[in-house]
Amino acid sequence: MTSPTFPPALFQSFEEKADPSQVAPRVEALRAEFAAAGVDGFLIPRADAHRGESVPPGEARLAYVTGFTGSAGVALVGKDRAALFVDSRYTLQAPAQTNTELVDVLSSDRGGITAEALRYVPEGGSLGYDPWLHTPGEVRDMEKLLDGHAKLVPVANLVDRIWSDRPGAPVSTIEFLGHNRAGKTTADKIAEISEGLGKADAAVLTLPESICWLFNMRGRDVPNTPFVLGFAIVQKDSRPTLYLDSGKITPDLRQALEGLADISPSQDFAAALSQLGRDGKGVQIDPASAPAAVAETLAQAGAKLIEQRDPVLLPKSRKNEAELAGMREAHKLDAVALAKFLAWFDAEAPAGKLTEIDIVTALEAFRREEESCVDASFDTISGAGPNGAIVHYRVTSKTNRTLRPGELMLVDSGAQYLSGTTDITRTMATGTPTVEQRDRFTRVLKGMIAISMAHFPKGTTGAQIDVLARQFLWQVGQTYNHGTGHGVGAYLGVHEGPVGIAPRYATPFETGNVLSNEPGYYKAGEYGIRVENLIVVQESEAAPGYLDFETLTLVPIDTRLVDVALLTQAERDWLNAYHQMVWREIGPLVTGDVKLWLEGATEAI
Amino acid sequence: MTSPTFPPALFQSFEEKADPSQVAPRVEALRAEFAAAGVDGFLIPRADAHRGESVPPGEARLAYVTGFTGSAGVALVGKDRAALFVDSRYTLQAPAQTNTELVDVLSSDRGGITAEALRYVPEGGSLGYDPWLHTPGEVRDMEKLLDGHAKLVPVANLVDRIWSDRPGAPVSTIEFLGHNRAGKTTADKIAEISEGLGKADAAVLTLPESICWLFNMRGRDVPNTPFVLGFAIVQKDSRPTLYLDSGKITPDLRQALEGLADISPSQDFAAALSQLGRDGKGVQIDPASAPAAVAETLAQAGAKLIEQRDPVLLPKSRKNEAELAGMREAHKLDAVALAKFLAWFDAEAPAGKLTEIDIVTALEAFRREEESCVDASFDTISGAGPNGAIVHYRVTSKTNRTLRPGELMLVDSGAQYLSGTTDITRTMATGTPTVEQRDRFTRVLKGMIAISMAHFPKGTTGAQIDVLARQFLWQVGQTYNHGTGHGVGAYLGVHEGPVGIAPRYATPFETGNVLSNEPGYYKAGEYGIRVENLIVVQESEAAPGYLDFETLTLVPIDTRLVDVALLTQAERDWLNAYHQMVWREIGPLVTGDVKLWLEGATEAI
Repeated sequence: MTSPTFPPALFQSFEEKADPSQVAPRVEALRAEFAAAGVDGFLIPRADAHRGESVPPGEARLAYVTGFTGSAGVALVGKDRAALFVDSRYTLQAPAQTNTELVDVLSSDRGGITAEALRYVPEGGSLGYDPWLHTPGEVRDMEKLLDGHAKLVPVANLVDRIWSDRPGAPVSTIEFLGHNRAGKTTADKIAEISEGLGKADAAVLTLPESICWLFNMRGRDVPNTPFVLGFAIVQKDSRPTLYLDSGKITPDLRQALEGLADISPSQDFAAALSQLGRDGKGVQIDPASAPAAVAETLAQAGAKLIEQRDPVLLPKSRKNEAELAGMREAHKLDAVALAKFLAWFDAEAPAGKLTEIDIVTALEAFRREEESCVDASFDTISGAGPNGAIVHYRVTSKTNRTLRPGELMLVDSGAQYLSGTTDITRTMATGTPTVEQRDRFTRVLKGMIAISMAHFPKGTTGAQIDVLARQFLWQVGQTYNHGTGHGVGAYLGVHEGPVGIAPRYATPFETGNVLSNEPGYYKAGEYGIRVENLIVVQESEAAPGYLDFETLTLVPIDTRLVDVALLTQAERDWLNAYHQMVWREIGPLVTGDVKLWLEGATEAI
Repeated sequence: MTSPTFPPALFQSFEEKADPSQVAPRVEALRAEFAAAGVDGFLIPRADAHRGESVPPGEARLAYVTGFTGSAGVALVGKDRAALFVDSRYTLQAPAQTNTELVDVLSSDRGGITAEALRYVPEGGSLGYDPWLHTPGEVRDMEKLLDGHAKLVPVANLVDRIWSDRPGAPVSTIEFLGHNRAGKTTADKIAEISEGLGKADAAVLTLPESICWLFNMRGRDVPNTPFVLGFAIVQKDSRPTLYLDSGKITPDLRQALEGLADISPSQDFAAALSQLGRDGKGVQIDPASAPAAVAETLAQAGAKLIEQRDPVLLPKSRKNEAELAGMREAHKLDAVALAKFLAWFDAEAPAGKLTEIDIVTALEAFRREEESCVDASFDTISGAGPNGAIVHYRVTSKTNRTLRPGELMLVDSGAQYLSGTTDITRTMATGTPTVEQRDRFTRVLKGMIAISMAHFPKGTTGAQIDVLARQFLWQVGQTYNHGTGHGVGAYLGVHEGPVGIAPRYATPFETGNVLSNEPGYYKAGEYGIRVENLIVVQESEAAPGYLDFETLTLVPIDTRLVDVALLTQAERDWLNAYHQMVWREIGPLVTGDVKLWLEGATEAI
């Protein structure tokens, strides 16, 4: 196989824009706003009002002030000192990006403030926050934490006052899904959500995935996820209203939603909430995702607040047949790209010259050969050798490592196809793996197979089955410090609730739920292993009345890492049947060296 | 082996005292009290103020009024109609025991009232309840259920007014545990609980298991569990006070607790609560078990109520080395009785004459050969053939069934030894089991072995590992409708919280927790299977830093029911090692035919 040259990556940057020199003047400018706002400190969270994993440039206030570009965290800028709270993923990155002379980087379990926050606000003082950027649940938690030491004061965002060249809101073109992809009309979806409101007269939707699902639309307002940012109010007795940046409100859009929804500019959203309140309506909001400003505006105007989970989340998680057909198609397209990539990898890795960035770039290039691949679904995790043990590793030009023959290579990646969303992890051997590596890989694989083969009664939750994936590692005193699986959207977010596989998931599985199944093993400083397929909950044929999983992902698992003696016959049968299916489905779609490689990679063991 | 004759059972009655003719006059008499009490209905729960599974005769108000003797349920006697709410265990027994012309038997998930209660109280009416017999949590749930339809009114118990020959409170002799059994002094326990109070100045204990554990004492106030009924108040800065029926306050008791606790008659308890309130104390109560009267008395007098789990439950669940030594001793004594019983059973069953009552009687007799066996820890479940499929079956002279050769026999039983509490289920074949029976038995056994062999990290809960026991049944679309395991006390309650193995148990395992491990399979109308051992959480030797289980129960598992082909080598090794341990530990303690039987029953497969 000749070594191709790849175009540069478009979906992912390898630079960490860090300019600690900007921290001092920006923190100073911010402090200059405190007196007028009547506060002694101000909170700057990573989140925007829509709680997405990615935010548009004009919402990257945390990065603007502190320099820190991670996907979670919050800064508390006090009068004299500032603190940046980040979770364990970012304890190295955050100090490298910010000015640690001015900002103390503090670790926090979930990236929110901790009790240490009290040291940054004077007793009896006021801590300002932007109520559009925090949920009512977060505000309550912070009030509990402050416990009377200081009071939380909602204020207009102080960062926006000092950020003179702040980018405007993103205005990407809105696409509408054909019925062959959506499988359910917007009218039917609106009817379903309206009828399900129960005691509430209206529900406020603030999550872009909910709004995109409801109106069968997609956009490109943020990277990685085809979101249209906006708000919506669904009413029991009248048409819903969609609130969008006025730049997005085109004649095409009006026509597409004609008769289904009213469309208003975003700036009318708050007034509409007040009107609901003045009308004395019962309004449902999700305290885990709605901005506190929504709750406060409603309550102050007299609405009866009903706190309940976003009503779209459950129906959205139950993919219909059209959505599943799209997901299957996307996984075939992705499997072709992965087969090309893995064949290339096996040919190139022994030379010992591939870097982590080469690997990301090649994988993206193979995916982009398919036109309907519009984005990565997240930044590829490309971990060579010891970097594979960093669970949320993201390669930069600074950390970029050359893969040495004999090391393990962990690649966790995904793509957005117009037909659906993918997410896959494969761990590859590049030489002769050690006995321990094969033992650990096989235990991880046994866990993934245990989930794949499980049948379970209706009503079962991800909390219940999580241990099936961990049990074989537990037997040797090992585990992995992340969930076994998360929900995945259909050409939407690669992470979505409310169903998943981990002790925290209490929502029962239902047919059509798409999930990742990704146990792992990480030996710090040495290597990382993860094997991930996407699976769909279906009615079981083998155990009538029960549920089980169909596997969507169609990519070989590296059998060079399997210790066959550790597999039961049933597990071995599963693995061989899986590879047979991969060969049957993907074999006809590839040619030449890739086909030869695939044939070998799917051989029975 | 010659067939012995057994003395009649003392620990268990086979009669269901049911006299439906008494229901009419008692309900009438009760209604005659409504006007004076200002109520339109009255609630009669099975529970007493101490929430035990057994109640003393004078607390059996539900049975007195409705005739129903089950261990859970509540009656609502309205002006015209009455309802008796029972859970699925009692949907057959309750109608047989009460007068169904006057009392509607309604089914309820957990034995509390349901929304149907509204039909029995007029709109705007008052429903009386005895605040000593309901918890604050129950009162809140009932208020939510009534939703303004009627109001709940605490009143002095109306049943007690009409029950002229109501038995007095039980006064059994109090025994104190030697240090070799308790392993921790009362002084140390009091110090531990007092120091753990946190913000509270005092904690009110209303559960007899908590009080018995704290004061290292046991009694015989109720059947099956060596309880002393009473209340206690533990204070942060002064000695605790124990409130007991004055008949129990003997010079011996005063001497045993001298310098450790004050002792007061029960009737002073309410005044002491009021005093705490007047002193403005912060008082901790457990909303899941304290009587509502305790909460109301405290609150009305001005106490600051702190709702928190009974502070004794967690430390009590962590058995110390002395308690575990006692438990191990009790399990050896019990294993000797079980070996005699199973040898007798195997000899007698083929003749086809044994009844379920014969089996209970024989088992009790073998246990009572050991003097330190003072009680059964619950009524033996003795289910022949199809009766084995009734999960909470309790044989009566009416239901008593003769075991036919070829049927399966399920026996779930336990005993209270002075050294500890046991609970064991074995399922025995009496002829050639069917292929299906062996398949199901083997899957149940594989589940029990999976729990027995599991290693798991600290912080793991019973909710997480429950599926290990179910997975093999799930694979054939089957499960069991009960938890996998419950906590077990050390010469205390055979069911105790807060640790267990089922989706509802969120408390992490800690070393010293004693649990049952009892998966099952039930085919209605045909047969039931359950295999139950008790296990203890311990530090793992095989997986350092992890936890695993030591098995306490030392009784052969019927290998005639095992399909060896379904076992992995590891499972087979576990079973053979278990039987080797049984033979090693119990072989030397039995003789003659029993020894011969045990040798055969513990042979490797």
